[in-house]
Amino acid sequence: MKIVVVGGVAGGASFAARARRLSETAEIVIFERGVAPSFANCGLPYYVGGEIQTRSKLLVTSVEQLRVRHKLDVRPRTEVTAIDRERKVVSFRSLESGQTGEMSYDKLVLSPGAQPRLPPVAGAQSDRVHTIRDLTDADRLWQAVQDNARRVVIIGGGFIGVEMAENFRRRGFYVALIERSPHVMAMCDQEMTVPLQQAMVEHGVDLYVNDEVTNIDHRNDVVDVNLGSGVRLVVDLVVAAIGVDPENDLAKAAGLDIGPRGGIVVNEHQQTSDADIYAVGDAIETIDFITGGRTQVPLGGPANRQGRIAADHVFGRTTKFRGVQGTAIVGFFEHSAGMTGMSEKRLKLSGIDYRKIYLHPAHHAGYFPGAEQMTIKLLFAPADGKILGAQIVGKKGVDKRIDVLSMAIQAGMTVYDLEEVELAYAPQFGSAKDPINMAGFIAAGVLRNDQPIIQSADLPAMLEAGAKLIDVRTPKEFASGHIPGAVNIPVDDLRNRLGEIPQSTSIISYCKVGQRGYLATRILLQNGYDARNLSGGFTTWQLLHPRSE
Amino acid sequence: MKIVVVGGVAGGASFAARARRLSETAEIVIFERGVAPSFANCGLPYYVGGEIQTRSKLLVTSVEQLRVRHKLDVRPRTEVTAIDRERKVVSFRSLESGQTGEMSYDKLVLSPGAQPRLPPVAGAQSDRVHTIRDLTDADRLWQAVQDNARRVVIIGGGFIGVEMAENFRRRGFYVALIERSPHVMAMCDQEMTVPLQQAMVEHGVDLYVNDEVTNIDHRNDVVDVNLGSGVRLVVDLVVAAIGVDPENDLAKAAGLDIGPRGGIVVNEHQQTSDADIYAVGDAIETIDFITGGRTQVPLGGPANRQGRIAADHVFGRTTKFRGVQGTAIVGFFEHSAGMTGMSEKRLKLSGIDYRKIYLHPAHHAGYFPGAEQMTIKLLFAPADGKILGAQIVGKKGVDKRIDVLSMAIQAGMTVYDLEEVELAYAPQFGSAKDPINMAGFIAAGVLRNDQPIIQSADLPAMLEAGAKLIDVRTPKEFASGHIPGAVNIPVDDLRNRLGEIPQSTSIISYCKVGQRGYLATRILLQNGYDARNLSGGFTTWQLLHPRSE
Repeated sequence: MKIVVVGGVAGGASFAARARRLSETAEIVIFERGVAPSFANCGLPYYVGGEIQTRSKLLVTSVEQLRVRHKLDVRPRTEVTAIDRERKVVSFRSLESGQTGEMSYDKLVLSPGAQPRLPPVAGAQSDRVHTIRDLTDADRLWQAVQDNARRVVIIGGGFIGVEMAENFRRRGFYVALIERSPHVMAMCDQEMTVPLQQAMVEHGVDLYVNDEVTNIDHRNDVVDVNLGSGVRLVVDLVVAAIGVDPENDLAKAAGLDIGPRGGIVVNEHQQTSDADIYAVGDAIETIDFITGGRTQVPLGGPANRQGRIAADHVFGRTTKFRGVQGTAIVGFFEHSAGMTGMSEKRLKLSGIDYRKIYLHPAHHAGYFPGAEQMTIKLLFAPADGKILGAQIVGKKGVDKRIDVLSMAIQAGMTVYDLEEVELAYAPQFGSAKDPINMAGFIAAGVLRNDQPIIQSADLPAMLEAGAKLIDVRTPKEFASGHIPGAVNIPVDDLRNRLGEIPQSTSIISYCKVGQRGYLATRILLQNGYDARNLSGGFTTWQLLHPRSE
Repeated sequence: MKIVVVGGVAGGASFAARARRLSETAEIVIFERGVAPSFANCGLPYYVGGEIQTRSKLLVTSVEQLRVRHKLDVRPRTEVTAIDRERKVVSFRSLESGQTGEMSYDKLVLSPGAQPRLPPVAGAQSDRVHTIRDLTDADRLWQAVQDNARRVVIIGGGFIGVEMAENFRRRGFYVALIERSPHVMAMCDQEMTVPLQQAMVEHGVDLYVNDEVTNIDHRNDVVDVNLGSGVRLVVDLVVAAIGVDPENDLAKAAGLDIGPRGGIVVNEHQQTSDADIYAVGDAIETIDFITGGRTQVPLGGPANRQGRIAADHVFGRTTKFRGVQGTAIVGFFEHSAGMTGMSEKRLKLSGIDYRKIYLHPAHHAGYFPGAEQMTIKLLFAPADGKILGAQIVGKKGVDKRIDVLSMAIQAGMTVYDLEEVELAYAPQFGSAKDPINMAGFIAAGVLRNDQPIIQSADLPAMLEAGAKLIDVRTPKEFASGHIPGAVNIPVDDLRNRLGEIPQSTSIISYCKVGQRGYLATRILLQNGYDARNLSGGFTTWQLLHPRSE
């Protein structure tokens, strides 16, 4: 068996290591365009920022180790230029010597990755406009940072953009971040990105959302970045992080099926439309675990698992890739934002029926020092309570709850299951009623109609239609800020002041996070009112009405 | 509807709050022997240690708030002395005025908790021998700490004992901890408690395992604690944390069914053998989610959920308690030990067939600064790979992985599912192949027979039977310590040195944590050897052969 792998890193290197464990005798060749077939892609921003101080840390496995330990024929700095599917042969060319050659294969594995996009504007093609894909890019950027550069424009507010913003701020750079969407982290719902954006502003990032770069002028030592809004930013360098395009040239030229967004089409065993050619990682189109549809998710975790599964299949096993859920997390200094499953905007686009709740629990017992508030948005199916997606933002414990909810989605669990989840509790780690249980209680309460809720976005229409809004917090809390139009009746006075509340109209109660509002709603419902609780309370309402914007 | 609740805190207070939300009109009375029906039980050790600085932080909900907000008739410092099931009446007595009275009920809820045990030795009944159950106990201990006490003996190495040891060390006390079992945290398997015990010794705790207190002598200002080993410890105070007995006097006197270990017997709706009497929390016997058998688990999380379920059932809902998995965690300074499902010793006792693996992954990407190694033990069914239990020890990320595995157990997932788990990855939060994925890869590899393993405990017998042991680490690692009898052939040399290895006998390979040993095993197997990998490598072997013991 002779296997040729095109491209290393997550997918290709995982494939090769697994293939070697499954067969000592297979001949395995890896062509890698870059210098290192196995490096820590996700660490690059932190290397530029100095958080990872030694470059060698990024080299997960050296070429030498791949050769000796895994008996792999590694060809760095070598590009595969064509696939001849008839003859089962690839053509390659050394990027150093220029020498070309051919190599036959029994099985071919494509792991070419994805190409960072450059903004389609004048001046984008320049050595002062960086993208981050491999070690060479990181080296160039690292060198620029050692030189006199002190100011950077980052184009794009996704994972890489946000991480680069943190890392340049850590180095003391002036940082402006430009995002064309109305908010950073476009894969999340807008309101859930508000805390992250506020944190970015607090950490000194100049944030331009709903804006875009129109052209880049290079003058002597500086770069002028001109925005659609008319702003001109004068900086030393530019980092473009506006997404990636699957590297599909080779596959396309070979006539393999390509999806509508450019990803190489594969089946559940990672086989392309040619059964002897597999594809893994950022270059492919894969299965959406929730909808069963097709998606493209350029993340390291799935790439690793796809590499294993392709190797299994090459050696006669029937393991299947179950699809991606879109579980991901981004850190920004002490803040983090995690997601799993579908966002509300994707549910809307897909026409899937959903309900949602918000909550703002502490990450561990409130009585234990250092408790940090997080915001959880849970999306679930009204029919059976099945969990469809979740987003969490906060300072601590976000990664844990996203992972727990990712498990819930993988297992097909419902909000009723979350009520019963048994999580590890000691006051420094969680709460007797963990945020996950609380999410289950609230969501199940909504579906059982114990707790009719309304969403902040629907508030204006309800008030317009004559609903009354009651703030059930204390007078002090009310005085320090409340939703326009609200009347203050603290929950502890509510039973005695029912006479002030008309029975003839819908009543909406709210508190800080939703807990007292829930009790108020229960009191009102049982007294014959048409009552609802504002999901997530004033805290969620503020996410939809951020002060600084 | 008139409901009487006996005992507050987790179970009783959760019941009452839920009951009120379900009914505005029910009359709900809570009798509480202590001063506060709702306080943070699990915070008491940290209050004594000064980590929680304000006593008021421990009061989750004040009596006033329970009365006003939840319209509960709260009777603190009042003891229920008898239940007349015929007449549906309880007798009570004020612990302050001594006044007695009767109160009728439609539904009665017992949440009396559990009584800390005192060691059955002379001198244990003394005001210098403390137990920790409620605020009054914590106040007494806190006062003792403010006085001149500087030395303490803690009897018992369970959750409370370990937490008290941390907190007294934080206050600079001399701390001796006495544990009758061969190791602390008796609910865990011995080898998994080694890192915790080492941490305790490093933090200055004098640890006496396999030892017990024979008698306690009180002389003037000091206490002599005499141990079975002959050691005499001279200290200022003693804390007994050797477990609890369900408070069942009231239930027993009323003729309710009591289990063999003293817990009040309830059904899945929390009803006792009298359908109008419910019981929740530490006083009851409950269902083991894994075995379906009966168990007693005095933990706050289940108590809270049981309170809710009892309230639901009182008001005509059919929610069921799904049982407890035994998910728990204990912290000791920067260390933590978590567990979920069954331990190996319980599996053995229950006669359940199992397999086990060990691994020692970093808590986040190794290339990102601050990665801490954890030790995971995963127990699973050989027939279908179903996860039966897990234990994890380490410094960081332990709580997250235990919670993820708790979800896996609740969902009935297998080790094959863990291979496919999609967890949130960025280098500061995890790894592209998360420790959970790694556990799945290894366990599934064992069941698929890709990776035959042996356990450290079985090594002597195998070597006795003629097996050869190969250390596949580097010569430098080998020189710094290895398993007696091992021959060093580094994995990178293995293919070239197969001639040195006899085909006639079983070969066991090992490395530091099991990864290189796995590759070596694959190489040997494919070259016709009867090869196995030592699960968890030298690191696990060291847990069974700790240097200090």
